[in-house]
Amino acid sequence: MESEQLFDRKGFYRNSYNSITSASSDEELLDGAGVIMDFHASEDDNLLDGDATSPGSNYIMSNGGGVVSSTTHLLDFLEEPIPGVGTYDDFHTIDWVREKCKDRERHRKINAKKKESAWEFTKSLYDAWSGWLVVTLTGLASGALAGLIDIAADWLNDIKEGICLNAMWFNHEQCCWGSNETTFAERDKCPQWKSWAGLILGQEEGPGSYIMNYFMYIYWALSFAFLAVLLVKVFAPYACGSGIPEIKTILSGFIIRGYLGKWTLLIKTVTLVLAVASGLSLGKEGPLVHVACCCGNIFSYLFPKYSKNEAKKREVLSAASAAGVSVAFGAPIGGVLFSLEEVSYYFPLKTLWRSFFAALVAAFVLRSINPFGNSRLVLFYVEYHTPWYLFELIPFILLGVFGGLWGAFFIKANIAWCRRRKSTRFGKYPVLEVIFVAAITAVVAFPNPYTRQNTSELIKELFTDCGPLESSQLCQYRSQMNGSKAFVDASPNKPAGPGVYAAMWQLCLALIFKIIMTIFTFGLKVPAGLFIPSMAIGAIAGRIVGIAVEQLAYYHHDWLVFREWCEVGTDCITPGLYAMVGAAACLGGVTRMTVSLVVIVFELTGGLEYIVPLMAAVMTSKWVGDAFGREGIYEAHIRLNGYPFLDAKEEFTHTTLAREVMRPQRSDPPLAVLTQDDLTVEELQGIINETSYNGFPVIVSKESQRLVGFALRRDITIAIENARRKQEGILLTSRVYFTQHAPTLPADSPRPLKLRSILDMSPFTVTDHTPMEIVVDIFRKLGLRQCLVTHNGRLLGIITKKDILRHMAQMANQDPDNIMFN
Amino acid sequence: MESEQLFDRKGFYRNSYNSITSASSDEELLDGAGVIMDFHASEDDNLLDGDATSPGSNYIMSNGGGVVSSTTHLLDFLEEPIPGVGTYDDFHTIDWVREKCKDRERHRKINAKKKESAWEFTKSLYDAWSGWLVVTLTGLASGALAGLIDIAADWLNDIKEGICLNAMWFNHEQCCWGSNETTFAERDKCPQWKSWAGLILGQEEGPGSYIMNYFMYIYWALSFAFLAVLLVKVFAPYACGSGIPEIKTILSGFIIRGYLGKWTLLIKTVTLVLAVASGLSLGKEGPLVHVACCCGNIFSYLFPKYSKNEAKKREVLSAASAAGVSVAFGAPIGGVLFSLEEVSYYFPLKTLWRSFFAALVAAFVLRSINPFGNSRLVLFYVEYHTPWYLFELIPFILLGVFGGLWGAFFIKANIAWCRRRKSTRFGKYPVLEVIFVAAITAVVAFPNPYTRQNTSELIKELFTDCGPLESSQLCQYRSQMNGSKAFVDASPNKPAGPGVYAAMWQLCLALIFKIIMTIFTFGLKVPAGLFIPSMAIGAIAGRIVGIAVEQLAYYHHDWLVFREWCEVGTDCITPGLYAMVGAAACLGGVTRMTVSLVVIVFELTGGLEYIVPLMAAVMTSKWVGDAFGREGIYEAHIRLNGYPFLDAKEEFTHTTLAREVMRPQRSDPPLAVLTQDDLTVEELQGIINETSYNGFPVIVSKESQRLVGFALRRDITIAIENARRKQEGILLTSRVYFTQHAPTLPADSPRPLKLRSILDMSPFTVTDHTPMEIVVDIFRKLGLRQCLVTHNGRLLGIITKKDILRHMAQMANQDPDNIMFN
Repeated sequence: MESEQLFDRKGFYRNSYNSITSASSDEELLDGAGVIMDFHASEDDNLLDGDATSPGSNYIMSNGGGVVSSTTHLLDFLEEPIPGVGTYDDFHTIDWVREKCKDRERHRKINAKKKESAWEFTKSLYDAWSGWLVVTLTGLASGALAGLIDIAADWLNDIKEGICLNAMWFNHEQCCWGSNETTFAERDKCPQWKSWAGLILGQEEGPGSYIMNYFMYIYWALSFAFLAVLLVKVFAPYACGSGIPEIKTILSGFIIRGYLGKWTLLIKTVTLVLAVASGLSLGKEGPLVHVACCCGNIFSYLFPKYSKNEAKKREVLSAASAAGVSVAFGAPIGGVLFSLEEVSYYFPLKTLWRSFFAALVAAFVLRSINPFGNSRLVLFYVEYHTPWYLFELIPFILLGVFGGLWGAFFIKANIAWCRRRKSTRFGKYPVLEVIFVAAITAVVAFPNPYTRQNTSELIKELFTDCGPLESSQLCQYRSQMNGSKAFVDASPNKPAGPGVYAAMWQLCLALIFKIIMTIFTFGLKVPAGLFIPSMAIGAIAGRIVGIAVEQLAYYHHDWLVFREWCEVGTDCITPGLYAMVGAAACLGGVTRMTVSLVVIVFELTGGLEYIVPLMAAVMTSKWVGDAFGREGIYEAHIRLNGYPFLDAKEEFTHTTLAREVMRPQRSDPPLAVLTQDDLTVEELQGIINETSYNGFPVIVSKESQRLVGFALRRDITIAIENARRKQEGILLTSRVYFTQHAPTLPADSPRPLKLRSILDMSPFTVTDHTPMEIVVDIFRKLGLRQCLVTHNGRLLGIITKKDILRHMAQMANQDPDNIMFN
Repeated sequence: MESEQLFDRKGFYRNSYNSITSASSDEELLDGAGVIMDFHASEDDNLLDGDATSPGSNYIMSNGGGVVSSTTHLLDFLEEPIPGVGTYDDFHTIDWVREKCKDRERHRKINAKKKESAWEFTKSLYDAWSGWLVVTLTGLASGALAGLIDIAADWLNDIKEGICLNAMWFNHEQCCWGSNETTFAERDKCPQWKSWAGLILGQEEGPGSYIMNYFMYIYWALSFAFLAVLLVKVFAPYACGSGIPEIKTILSGFIIRGYLGKWTLLIKTVTLVLAVASGLSLGKEGPLVHVACCCGNIFSYLFPKYSKNEAKKREVLSAASAAGVSVAFGAPIGGVLFSLEEVSYYFPLKTLWRSFFAALVAAFVLRSINPFGNSRLVLFYVEYHTPWYLFELIPFILLGVFGGLWGAFFIKANIAWCRRRKSTRFGKYPVLEVIFVAAITAVVAFPNPYTRQNTSELIKELFTDCGPLESSQLCQYRSQMNGSKAFVDASPNKPAGPGVYAAMWQLCLALIFKIIMTIFTFGLKVPAGLFIPSMAIGAIAGRIVGIAVEQLAYYHHDWLVFREWCEVGTDCITPGLYAMVGAAACLGGVTRMTVSLVVIVFELTGGLEYIVPLMAAVMTSKWVGDAFGREGIYEAHIRLNGYPFLDAKEEFTHTTLAREVMRPQRSDPPLAVLTQDDLTVEELQGIINETSYNGFPVIVSKESQRLVGFALRRDITIAIENARRKQEGILLTSRVYFTQHAPTLPADSPRPLKLRSILDMSPFTVTDHTPMEIVVDIFRKLGLRQCLVTHNGRLLGIITKKDILRHMAQMANQDPDNIMFN
């Protein structure tokens, strides 16, 4: 045990997983808490193979091994831990069980040492707190970056329309704060703010200046879009898209190097601002999750606990994604639930607490930055003052149906378009595509005020109830008392004025425009979130429905449903609430989130009052959407990209057995196996070079097919290379053995190579009769990479995560070769 | 396949698990989606045992079995499904994997049939919606019962002090609503409400009537307590306590028959009202979770999907516990998180949605009942209007430390007392004990107004900020302007008046009283929750600290910390907030909840503003408490009662291997195994009678020790009995076989008994070298009951859940014989 500790102090994290299994098979455990430990299972019991031993006897009789083990000690001591063993290649799947074992081993070592000295104790404290530290840092950084992005995007967005003369770095609203010449109703007009036409042509009104503004709008939109796509293409290709599909895949245990790196962070932050400002139909909420995860990943490098362990790193990333949603929507609890419901794979309770903490810290930082000047975390925070009535559930459920239909249609259309982009030469020109889409967006968007303005602001306007101070076109109702068009107290339901009718038409056009453009925008090579466009579409539809119901209630107040609740002169319909319900329904249809979505919207309004309408709409939307296809947009993109993602939400309902999925099937070449003590280095290298498998089962002998363990290709290659470099006498003819003791060899044979330290002696096995539903469950819950299949104790084959995914694709009549990675 | 379906239509749920495995081993699957299926692994390959077969060959060569299988078809058809197979005994652990397989099989059958007729389609729709239906019913019932309990407890509690003359069924507050003779400040005094002294002696004031009221108070308290304990003892012993430890255990997969039955529900509801009214130091929140779970269990009997499947039933119970907390605290989101963090074991996303829905429905029903007359779900809903300052984190963290210390102390003291009650003859007299505790509580509580009143009302008073309308003694500050004692606008910080000083003393006494009585009360044989007493203790401590800080800030406003934030004449300290933080900290110390607790309290205040103080206090409290022992009160009670509960939160950190935990160890008798085809019925019965194991591994032969499957004791007994009753020719000398085909027997031997249908052909196995941490992880995540241990393909031993719990107890230096059940 002494020698074991000595070498482990150098190769601290690398080999710890195997040292659990190998260490305790060599010698007595120090931990003598009353467990009977003094027996050894014979490691080379192929000698016993034909013997008729009773079940109890074959481990009691073989106690002689203890003598030999003291000599092998020396060998262990001479062997350096092999660098690189236990790490992963790019685009490979991690082994959760192994990673968690490594971490527990590390934890045990720190705990054992901490009483040795004050320094070790401090180190153990640092280790224990590093989890909280890293999520705090992540929360701080995410909040700060979100604030920065909000402010910058706001400013850049206003640049499209004009400039602040006395301070260029002010956006339109800030520019007019200082001005005291304007009334409250015209608070966004002030002499300091010059439109481009006003600056260049010297006049603010008239057709000439309209064309000038139009031209400048398109010019800036194209410039921003061009700059964004260029930066992404040149510096960080991973910065494009929303990033959530990839983060889901990464969290499920896949390695994509550089996806969460500092370059991606930097470029994504900059290009996100540019993309939002370019007026494309996209949002910053999804990418903010990616940005937060980049922060989490980067900070985790400060703590070896997280940087050296892929499973622990994913805990930080789960917390970071919660922080990302927290700042995107100002919803810390919703963020945690989003992380839990939508993106995370392995979510222990400790991660729940830390996610919550990270989300809170991020929200507080963002609130201190106060990017919207309303001391709220989001632009579209709302408060309603009227309750809802039971009959309103009908329009709410209709909005849910609309949301579900929109979601299903969007997913189908967007995936079809993205597949076309992938498969045809059309995808070769991403820069041109972005510029083209940006140009169309800008040209069509400018004339309509509802598409010209920032999408967040549009959502805010649609959510807001018409109050006495509201100057929006949407609130131009005719006053009831004298019939004249005027801005009056908006409380009771009133007939719509011409402003409202005009707004309705514009909103309908905006709805069609948004629906079409969003399909072509999501998937462009710029950072693009889907939350805001989806919400905008839902909010437009909801507001239209809301106003329609309101007018119905006004003109037909004698109808039974209205007579019951809507007395004349009282306010019973809140169109803003309809907009909110519609937004939630559409977002739900696209992403298929439910609880987290309801909680996010609940945190926007801060009242339990509206949970039932939201719940009804979101649930309807999910059910309607699921009727057309169970995948949300993120799962659909994961499948499109062929990532090895085993969705925890999808039930495996087929009756296939493990032996129908395992390799080799009848037509395949036989399983590539290693025998435990009769291969030479050359034979081993031959097997490795001839095959492309990631690992090989090790068996007692070809005759008995009894399983000993599993060795990874990467580990074997590294170990052989290392041995040939460092250990003398290792030749191509050297015998390789995975057993505890070297096999007896002729006297002139070269020094044998012991590879037991890289052997996983506890591989997961299932029998060939195990239903695949159980196998899938095991893979999901334990995070396995592969599993061996046995029949009556004999090795039959192997099932990998990829095999399962291919099988599931086959069962769903999809192309199984779609699954690309290992 | 036809015949298979035919018999399955009768024995619908019972045998489905095995029929997956056996069905597809007999014949080709209908589901021919491209999988190569036409090979059979040889079932009786002990013929091959010594052969030198290459890895690929041993399943390709044995295709002859297909001919025989068509004859065995007939046998399968003759065999009735065996009733009782697949059910569980009382106090046994369920097999989650098996239950989930059963459910998926059921689901598949319904899906396959639903296109047959409109009736089947309706049935499939009913099945699909039954999950939502059952949680809706559960939510409705929980909300209604909670409202009933609230109203009844309130009324009965006031009976202790007096009676409403014009309407006996009114409580004190309702009695005085109608009266217009009282002012707002004296709104709880009205002529209709008579104290007992007023009624009996005819006078309300004076020492005589004080003694009379004192006497009547004690009389009623004792009567309620006596009635409660009597009802529990006679009708439903399971109705006592909070029920949360048992619900945690049940949700983790343990069977306690009757624990969630209708008698328990009825008696718990009635006695809960009595126990709360008796003035004992207990709350109704924990028992409400039990009540909700009873509702969930009872409603699940309406739906075969849930009543016949223990795993599915637990999904309903998870949702019900969320509904319980939702109505207990008026916190639907907190309820879901409580269910997730604290009680649930298996929590798929679908359950998350349904829990949320159940919690919402329950909350809405309760709000419609409006038991507190404030259109809130709880009595102690609060709104604060002042922010908190950074320096206040110091007292908040101190409150956290207090909460942690209190939690640790309470757990130690209460467990010690409960252990004494269990082990000495003292526990033989539960009725006397309850009466004794109730008497002491009543005698000591009456003189102090803060202990006399209902604990919920006390918490409300402590939480509430002093506003201009507050008439409480706690708000008798001296006015600043003229120095005279008066009730003035309470906004700025003011010096405390004599009322506040008196209240401080009374609160200190109340704190000591509550601390002592709660220790002795929790564990009595009456329904008793811990949430409210813990919160009361924390609220008292918090209010005391709050007033102290407030007075410090008033008298020492020149101190640096106060100068910075508290200008003279402004209100900077809210003592009510301190009470709330203290309550959360104490509850956190006792239960070790974190996020769910913060969310529950957050839903009480409805503002993100105070999450940071709460988080700081709750986290501190958890850390301080954990330093003295990692168990919360519920886990401690589970351990005290010896339930087989494998806590998901506790990390297994030892380095033991599977072979050190498995049975048999060296000193044990050899493992009881069955061979697949050479036992007689008599030998089999002999093995079953000689041992007490719950199941037996089935192996190919004693020589090879190669594992075939696992058969449960209960299933074997039922199957043999069934066969001897129904099948002719089954004698004691009949051969029992688990193989696909009957072994070749001498001509005169009796008819053999085929038991393949009860054989689990996919038992879970691990190698003897598997670290126990992985084994524990597998047990937790998959919900296993047992796992077989192999070494190089040979069966070595078995590990059950009980073995793991015993091993964990051993490692923690606890008595391993404490784990009682299987």
